[in-house]
Amino acid sequence: MEEYKIKTKVVGVDISNELTTYAIVDIRGNIIAEESFLTCGYSDVNNFVTALSDKIVNLVEANGGYETIRSIGVSSPSASSVSGCIENAANLPWKGIVPLSAMLRDRIGLAVGLSNDAHVSALGEYTFGCAHGMKNFIILSLGVGIGSCFFTAGDDHIGHNGYAGEFGHTCVVKNGRACGCGHTGCLESYVGAAGIINTAKELMAESEAPTIMRNLEKLSPRTIKECCDQGDEMAIEVYRRTGEMLGLGLANYASLVDPEAIILTGGISHAGKWLLDPTCKSFEEHVFGNLRGKVKMLVSKLEDRERDVLGASALAWSVPEYSLFK
Amino acid sequence: MEEYKIKTKVVGVDISNELTTYAIVDIRGNIIAEESFLTCGYSDVNNFVTALSDKIVNLVEANGGYETIRSIGVSSPSASSVSGCIENAANLPWKGIVPLSAMLRDRIGLAVGLSNDAHVSALGEYTFGCAHGMKNFIILSLGVGIGSCFFTAGDDHIGHNGYAGEFGHTCVVKNGRACGCGHTGCLESYVGAAGIINTAKELMAESEAPTIMRNLEKLSPRTIKECCDQGDEMAIEVYRRTGEMLGLGLANYASLVDPEAIILTGGISHAGKWLLDPTCKSFEEHVFGNLRGKVKMLVSKLEDRERDVLGASALAWSVPEYSLFK
Repeated sequence: MEEYKIKTKVVGVDISNELTTYAIVDIRGNIIAEESFLTCGYSDVNNFVTALSDKIVNLVEANGGYETIRSIGVSSPSASSVSGCIENAANLPWKGIVPLSAMLRDRIGLAVGLSNDAHVSALGEYTFGCAHGMKNFIILSLGVGIGSCFFTAGDDHIGHNGYAGEFGHTCVVKNGRACGCGHTGCLESYVGAAGIINTAKELMAESEAPTIMRNLEKLSPRTIKECCDQGDEMAIEVYRRTGEMLGLGLANYASLVDPEAIILTGGISHAGKWLLDPTCKSFEEHVFGNLRGKVKMLVSKLEDRERDVLGASALAWSVPEYSLFK
Repeated sequence: MEEYKIKTKVVGVDISNELTTYAIVDIRGNIIAEESFLTCGYSDVNNFVTALSDKIVNLVEANGGYETIRSIGVSSPSASSVSGCIENAANLPWKGIVPLSAMLRDRIGLAVGLSNDAHVSALGEYTFGCAHGMKNFIILSLGVGIGSCFFTAGDDHIGHNGYAGEFGHTCVVKNGRACGCGHTGCLESYVGAAGIINTAKELMAESEAPTIMRNLEKLSPRTIKECCDQGDEMAIEVYRRTGEMLGLGLANYASLVDPEAIILTGGISHAGKWLLDPTCKSFEEHVFGNLRGKVKMLVSKLEDRERDVLGASALAWSVPEYSLFK
């Protein structure tokens, strides 16, 4: 008979197009140790998995040893929790179908749960953030891409193929702007980072009006937001148009899902009132009448990387424990 | 101690703007007896509930008696299963908030479950129709209004306020056609019965081209479909445009929900290939890339009223049994 041991820690891994972060997290959600490395340093995914495994093993051995770790949870863009694969990721160095879950499990000998970044974010917000206790909510990740996930009856909705929540690629303007995905009029082409920059360029091209945006060395959602803070009318109009599109898209989303709250996360949510006010206005104008005034619009209070690592740790607890020797 | 009796039948009630149908259904889904009356005959909801109760009691007494009935399930437009009320129904004679579930329960002394027509339809399709065994699917009811419901992980998604699935009032054209709900560009204003008629009128006004639609005594989705069957190009174009909008809306819906299948029900689904072909084409053009070719588009094989009464009976089984004397 096997000896029964309670393993009190998990590893949470957050893969993004810039950094891969891995942390040991205890059963109370305390981050015991955390390290990061550059994702783009590994153009071959086999090398990436080898490096990630070695780094995790080193961190684990320095912090209580392998026997104390129950499992691993991994967050990645374009990951499907149904197939355990990263599939056709637009923003990662590895193309096609990557069976990351199985690769990491085989290398490290621990159970691995994989899910896409928006789902893991939702899990983090549900377990440790402002969605705690909510059964039905939508979480958005607003950055380079627009990810989302929704919870129904206290559980995240995964979908039949593991792709639920592709909010960024819903169409808000028929035959509108070209999107990186090959379609036109996708929400992401208006509300993603590049979309906001394009709106700023369009506005500057349309009018001769003065704006300090013309003096910026680099247009970005952050620098445009700083112009808003200085009272720049055209910069404020950039976020007004962005919020108008986001509010319309969210109204459609909410009319289908009927959430208690919508929670905004990610870099672009830091634009604060410049984005939030026009988003709420457009949302209330477009949402199904019986829901008007009923859906809370919240900005996450968790730091993005903290939420994602904690979310990945929550995912790790949800996968069945695995033993090489059973 | 109470005697333990197994009650082997339930009552399913389907309220629509035209007819109210009520049936006794046994535990195997056989309809034992069924009757209908005109909903619009009762402008006062108290009179409606009194009449409905009396009619149900009569039917029950003629078919085995009150002691054999476990509970009642009711399907109605604009009903919320969270509040147990019909709320601000656009197409029923009773305005405002109607606590139908409690009114019927108090009058008849049986547990009553109430849910909106799209949810009950989905339950019927799930229990007795082509969604049987599916865990994630969308069901549409295409008629005067456009209702919908989706199942996640084998359960229908109700939403925080009981309003999930208001697909007809998602916006497909920003600042588009005026909709009965007060908004503009709602899917229903293009794909609902009145929307299809408006598209036909627009096309006839735009062009001098010959069409037998000009000779119709009454334009309706059904008569326009009959023109398609005769090879009328303009009538075919009416359904092509309708399908283009429906496919776009469904692509957005599916990108969020990632269903195994989309099931079309209701009068307008009887347009068959004239609607289905352009809907599928537009759907595949707009849906998130990783889902392309993966979502089945099905037309329900159940007769509409049969599905709704059977769905209401499935709802009845799901509510806790109730006793006046406990």
